[in-house]
Amino acid sequence: MRSFSQRISAFRESPTRKIDQMRERLKKENRDVILLSTGQPSVPPPMEVREALREALKVNSMNLYAYTPSQGVYEAREAISRDLKQLGQLDVPPEQIVLTAGGQAGMFSTLATIVEPGDEVVLMDPTYFGYRPLLDYFGAVVKTVVTELDAGFHPDIEVLKETVSRRTKALVVVSPDNPTGRTLRVETAKAIADLAQDYGFWIITDEAYKTLIYEGSHVYMYRFAPDHTISINTFSKDPAIPGWRLGYVYGPPDVVPKIKLVNEEMVYCPPSFAQYMVAVYLNSEVRLRYVSEVVEIYRRKRDAAVAALRKYLPKARFVPPAGAMFIFVDLSSYIKNGEAFAEMLLEKYGVAVVPGSYFSETYRSAVRVSFVTETIERIEEGVRRMGNAVT
Amino acid sequence: MRSFSQRISAFRESPTRKIDQMRERLKKENRDVILLSTGQPSVPPPMEVREALREALKVNSMNLYAYTPSQGVYEAREAISRDLKQLGQLDVPPEQIVLTAGGQAGMFSTLATIVEPGDEVVLMDPTYFGYRPLLDYFGAVVKTVVTELDAGFHPDIEVLKETVSRRTKALVVVSPDNPTGRTLRVETAKAIADLAQDYGFWIITDEAYKTLIYEGSHVYMYRFAPDHTISINTFSKDPAIPGWRLGYVYGPPDVVPKIKLVNEEMVYCPPSFAQYMVAVYLNSEVRLRYVSEVVEIYRRKRDAAVAALRKYLPKARFVPPAGAMFIFVDLSSYIKNGEAFAEMLLEKYGVAVVPGSYFSETYRSAVRVSFVTETIERIEEGVRRMGNAVT
Repeated sequence: MRSFSQRISAFRESPTRKIDQMRERLKKENRDVILLSTGQPSVPPPMEVREALREALKVNSMNLYAYTPSQGVYEAREAISRDLKQLGQLDVPPEQIVLTAGGQAGMFSTLATIVEPGDEVVLMDPTYFGYRPLLDYFGAVVKTVVTELDAGFHPDIEVLKETVSRRTKALVVVSPDNPTGRTLRVETAKAIADLAQDYGFWIITDEAYKTLIYEGSHVYMYRFAPDHTISINTFSKDPAIPGWRLGYVYGPPDVVPKIKLVNEEMVYCPPSFAQYMVAVYLNSEVRLRYVSEVVEIYRRKRDAAVAALRKYLPKARFVPPAGAMFIFVDLSSYIKNGEAFAEMLLEKYGVAVVPGSYFSETYRSAVRVSFVTETIERIEEGVRRMGNAVT
Repeated sequence: MRSFSQRISAFRESPTRKIDQMRERLKKENRDVILLSTGQPSVPPPMEVREALREALKVNSMNLYAYTPSQGVYEAREAISRDLKQLGQLDVPPEQIVLTAGGQAGMFSTLATIVEPGDEVVLMDPTYFGYRPLLDYFGAVVKTVVTELDAGFHPDIEVLKETVSRRTKALVVVSPDNPTGRTLRVETAKAIADLAQDYGFWIITDEAYKTLIYEGSHVYMYRFAPDHTISINTFSKDPAIPGWRLGYVYGPPDVVPKIKLVNEEMVYCPPSFAQYMVAVYLNSEVRLRYVSEVVEIYRRKRDAAVAALRKYLPKARFVPPAGAMFIFVDLSSYIKNGEAFAEMLLEKYGVAVVPGSYFSETYRSAVRVSFVTETIERIEEGVRRMGNAVT
């Protein structure tokens, strides 16, 4: 019968894609749009690394074009292993790392590997909108832990304790967080690790933004519960190759080969060109310099966005982000419906933001404001227009 | 509970990966291995196209690195649309094309979109080994149509008629075929199209090798049943970028957006770098010239392999392939167990082939011999050693 699988009804147009399409339409109408919606980096990868790729393209052999092992080339996994040691003093051997076609393939393959229909999985609210449709697809029962703006979006350890049980299959924690920019505290990480060990659940930790930290330092969940932690990572944000689709997952030795097998069935192997690029990047002296330059650029943009929000939206409530690319702004003093506001803001004021409802069932009057893609002048202008739009 | 999904038990180490690992070990022992096992092209992509990529890497903007639409950039889909018109006089608009992270992601997302647990799916035997584990994972019930060597591996239309029914959800046909090199006849395509229309099932047609044709021309299934045909394609073979992971799927307007959504959840978007490359390639005058040059090189290799098989294995039975990269050789006059033979051949004679049992429950004394990866001299030497190994 010419029909479709029921299960894919869990998959809908990605929320940011909806904004993207409205944006496309405005572009066709020649209207300029200020992009406070995307997590697209604004600093291209270092020229030194691009030069190495340019040289490799000259070589007349199949090396750069060939299939790679489905786990990823050893050189790239070795470079990642050293990078985790250098950045976080972690000991993760190359065997416990699997390269994936971006963080999204890392999420998909990890959930495919561990989630059985009916399994309970705990998400924070707000959290990155990518997890819910995958959990629905794999048949998980989602429980949420609401994190409070007044508590800096830090999960309340008592609430965590009340939420998890022997039925918990996994808990997902994004840090630095998307959409709030909150970074995990050591005591929270320790509490989650203790609970995971007590109840035997998986911790899925999304570390997409781990090198984009403006205050303090990144807390690696894996340090506290190495047998229970599956970490999802991407090269989309650092070194800014989102379109090239490369990320990696690391975790305990029993889970990584299974995640590898799922990736093999999904995409056969991760993109070789990006693997080659990342091996050059991570092994180069430019690696730490590039990150600190990018963090300084993004920090100035963040500070400008925070100042503009205080100036033009004085009754907005938000926590200045300690990491990542976004400010999660509660506009409930001004508006009720973040979705209607975001559409109106784009249509009438030419400013794109993402409604809070895409991340949360609680913060429905919030919007996510990205501060990385645009220049400081345009960020300020975008926030100024937001101020006009709420009055 | 720290456990795994039952469903992924459908996924096992890929058969060619097993051979690859034996090969890796022999490499470490400094033993030369003649590779008659892989479908890896031996002619790198055209230099003109690589030059365009080298120029693009010089530009200091995010263009080459940014996320693309999840369906793929319009320019690449437009180029594919024109290519299908030029090669096969097909009318497939860019809206009915979705770019995927290789043919494997095309297969995964297509089956995820249409297969419901319990659905009957018809495979040829022999057929490409990539389909069975995915069908097991999605819960399909597999029925097979054995194609006979004496009939040139063409499916018997009467057997097809007896196999399909109202319960058939899909029929998978690979053409040019892997492992047999058989190309679909017009009358077979018409018969399959009629059955699909009568019973309302999907035809999944794998056209990975559609430009590698040595005799006759490629028959496009889509021409005969456009409402029922989902076509899976790859750029791994032409223009020889298997590691870069780009392919595409085309089909009717109602199925393509669903396949796109699945790809979005799997990998977010196809690799941008490869999309850029393919748009340049397909729009360039080098496109047809490159294919005809590659086909001539592979044809000479095929002819050498056929001659060597006749010389060194006179009792072997095979059909000289009309397309693709392989000869499927029935060695039942010499041996019983193709798997044991392939392992012995690699270990003792340093020649890698893939056992027939990876493609078939019927041809267990066969092996698949690839004729593209090695030079003519090494192909001949490999077949000579096969002759020594069977006596």
